[in-house]
Amino acid sequence: MLDVDISVQDLVDALPAGVVLTDTDGLDKYRWDRALDPAAERPMAAVRAESTEHVQVAMRWAAEHRVPVVPRGAGTGLSGGATALAHGIVICTERMRAISIDPTTRVAVVQPGLLNAEVKAAAAAHGLWYPPDPSSYEICSIGGNIATNAGGLCCVKYGVTTDYVLGMQVVLSDGRAVRFGGPRVKDVAGLALHKLFVGSEGTLGIITEVTLRLMPPAPPAHTLATWFATTEDATAAILDITAQIRPSMLEYMDRATINAVEDELHMGLDRTAAALLIARTDSGDARELEIITAACERHQATEIYSTADEAEGELFVAARRGAIPAVEKHGRLLLEDVGVPLPRLPDLVAGIEQIAAARELTIALIAHAGDGNTHPLIVFDPSQPEMEQRAQLAFGEIMDLAIALGGTITGEHGVGRMKQPWLEGQVGADVLDVTRRIKQALDPDNILNPGAILI
Amino acid sequence: MLDVDISVQDLVDALPAGVVLTDTDGLDKYRWDRALDPAAERPMAAVRAESTEHVQVAMRWAAEHRVPVVPRGAGTGLSGGATALAHGIVICTERMRAISIDPTTRVAVVQPGLLNAEVKAAAAAHGLWYPPDPSSYEICSIGGNIATNAGGLCCVKYGVTTDYVLGMQVVLSDGRAVRFGGPRVKDVAGLALHKLFVGSEGTLGIITEVTLRLMPPAPPAHTLATWFATTEDATAAILDITAQIRPSMLEYMDRATINAVEDELHMGLDRTAAALLIARTDSGDARELEIITAACERHQATEIYSTADEAEGELFVAARRGAIPAVEKHGRLLLEDVGVPLPRLPDLVAGIEQIAAARELTIALIAHAGDGNTHPLIVFDPSQPEMEQRAQLAFGEIMDLAIALGGTITGEHGVGRMKQPWLEGQVGADVLDVTRRIKQALDPDNILNPGAILI
Repeated sequence: MLDVDISVQDLVDALPAGVVLTDTDGLDKYRWDRALDPAAERPMAAVRAESTEHVQVAMRWAAEHRVPVVPRGAGTGLSGGATALAHGIVICTERMRAISIDPTTRVAVVQPGLLNAEVKAAAAAHGLWYPPDPSSYEICSIGGNIATNAGGLCCVKYGVTTDYVLGMQVVLSDGRAVRFGGPRVKDVAGLALHKLFVGSEGTLGIITEVTLRLMPPAPPAHTLATWFATTEDATAAILDITAQIRPSMLEYMDRATINAVEDELHMGLDRTAAALLIARTDSGDARELEIITAACERHQATEIYSTADEAEGELFVAARRGAIPAVEKHGRLLLEDVGVPLPRLPDLVAGIEQIAAARELTIALIAHAGDGNTHPLIVFDPSQPEMEQRAQLAFGEIMDLAIALGGTITGEHGVGRMKQPWLEGQVGADVLDVTRRIKQALDPDNILNPGAILI
Repeated sequence: MLDVDISVQDLVDALPAGVVLTDTDGLDKYRWDRALDPAAERPMAAVRAESTEHVQVAMRWAAEHRVPVVPRGAGTGLSGGATALAHGIVICTERMRAISIDPTTRVAVVQPGLLNAEVKAAAAAHGLWYPPDPSSYEICSIGGNIATNAGGLCCVKYGVTTDYVLGMQVVLSDGRAVRFGGPRVKDVAGLALHKLFVGSEGTLGIITEVTLRLMPPAPPAHTLATWFATTEDATAAILDITAQIRPSMLEYMDRATINAVEDELHMGLDRTAAALLIARTDSGDARELEIITAACERHQATEIYSTADEAEGELFVAARRGAIPAVEKHGRLLLEDVGVPLPRLPDLVAGIEQIAAARELTIALIAHAGDGNTHPLIVFDPSQPEMEQRAQLAFGEIMDLAIALGGTITGEHGVGRMKQPWLEGQVGADVLDVTRRIKQALDPDNILNPGAILI
């Protein structure tokens, strides 16, 4: 049996004052991420690393004592990937906030604690753009984005986080720091280890620096907000649009979401509509606007509002970004993240409606519709255990539905601990076996985020 | 000791007639790839698989007898990744040529034997575009492209092969067929195994199907051909351009290459120029053209030829694509593929000139200049062993130079067997250790392409 107290004191002593937190109140801040996993425990310690070396010292200590390590960025994860463990420590990268930008190579070298919005701002200061834009971009860290291969609203045209990762520095389970890739668009010298680590949710190592590809500034976008009387019309319009062009954004909100957002923002959204589509085109090609408009008209849009004004368009995007907090006012949420190949989107939306009806629950639906990635928000009252149980059942049923439609249990939030039981159902036993072999090869004592992705 | 004859007959019998080749003449076709590795041996058999099942049958046989397997696409590899082994078999995917395209999801599901140009043509038939464009796109297979994470000319703006890979089917070393990823832009359910397999050069498994992301059609491009009196002027112009905009192509040819191409094509290229830049812009923004022109003028371009005519522009691109065969007329080539972070490109070009002078060799230089990826073509006479030795020394010195400049020994061709000795110098012992652990986890008997990437 591990003598916990003495071991943790060794860790405290090995790092500068203030880096390792062991007091009860302070540790509660590192217990939960945004998934609010009821199973979260108070960790033994939280290491607020200020450098790669600090991460290495903590990892070496953990390896020596075989203490589980939960890596943590800003704690905004939605799948319980940073749920703390009582017999483990948290290594948090929130204090690692350096960034440097080379405009000629068009890359940023960033420490993981910087927020996504701060990376965007630093790139913009050089006339450049870092596209990935999770809805939480103002509060989520770039390290967490890499660890989950985060998506966002622009992915339908501009891809996801991994498409922008050229290299990284990682601390491995034995405390070694290694560099994969680098500031080169083309580099095929050896296995693409940096790509393997993107989306590995802290199970293979702790990312302490990342090299990101930057883009020229985003072109100005034209925004359309389109209302529909039925969800079928809205999803038909989505497929009609995507079969013809690639919009720079194509977001979906259902009636429950529209009403929750309108309660908060008082924008004058149409509370009677079954669905609202927010589409953007930034190609500068006027035909795209015509194609979107014609597709919405063809599928009985009840109203189409079109604006070339960026600030006005941004109001609708902000409404979409505010959806989760708005719906959260109506109860505790189980936040889904299922996706399907685009032609199956109407089936997914219809199936979620059926699950909501059968389980007698409100399931508000928002979606990055253009890439088939949906966020059903299952609302429940945590003071009603029977209702919470129905919500849990619906949570699983929605994943089962997505799998049956050839989709994924998680498009952009990660598997974490909340979705781990469903992973095998999607990928199958053989892929899990491959996953386990790689995990075992890189973390033989299973100290890196045990329970996330793999049990 | 393995009883080779009997074993191979088992393999022949296990597959339909004509799939397994064992006659001496036929096997010589599967002995070398385009690297013409002198160490290539005649394999025991070549399996010309027609389905995933055929690959599985052959892999199971190989696993049972611990026979090395060299996976092969179209055999156009330039690093000896498909160099055959006398005690091994070749599994070739050239007969697996199915493709299906879903225009709504904008993905292609492709078997590995289809040529890159055929994938492009199939996508174009649906009004879509598959961007990656190795110079060899008319003769290289998509399977080989995935196995090497192939690049090309459009990468400076449109990225490399991995950026278009959403999923794949792979036959593992024990003969199991597994699927990673799928037709979804967003999918973070488990490790990004498909991304790990891109660029793995057949060392982790054999790709039997791939799901590719497609794009809207390429916009029309404006082409500039610009001559310079010194290589320093040309590389300075490159950095000037890339610091301001992202061209859709930015290719470089030096004097030796210009002359070799002119010998073949008689286009009227300026034989006295030290360097020719071929730049393209497809943004539709006229300022890009002005920026490129101004940058070239600022760095003493001796002539700038500008054309909006696609066919005329294509002539210059074809000249660039024809560079390797043209230079090859002057001797045997050792084909380099080194890359550096863009600001170090002038140092790389100057250093290669010094190596050529010191070793008294012609080293023709072509480059995907916009992403810092160069192809020094070391010319030698194979009938002169002393000259061949100097060429080999230069081959290594160029890689050492790239590593010293923070670059890569291979930007897009792969490590194969020819560059394996230099890999540790670039990535370091710890990264090789991680690589070996993953290889060992997935191919414990080391039967998948042994000698490629890892010794």
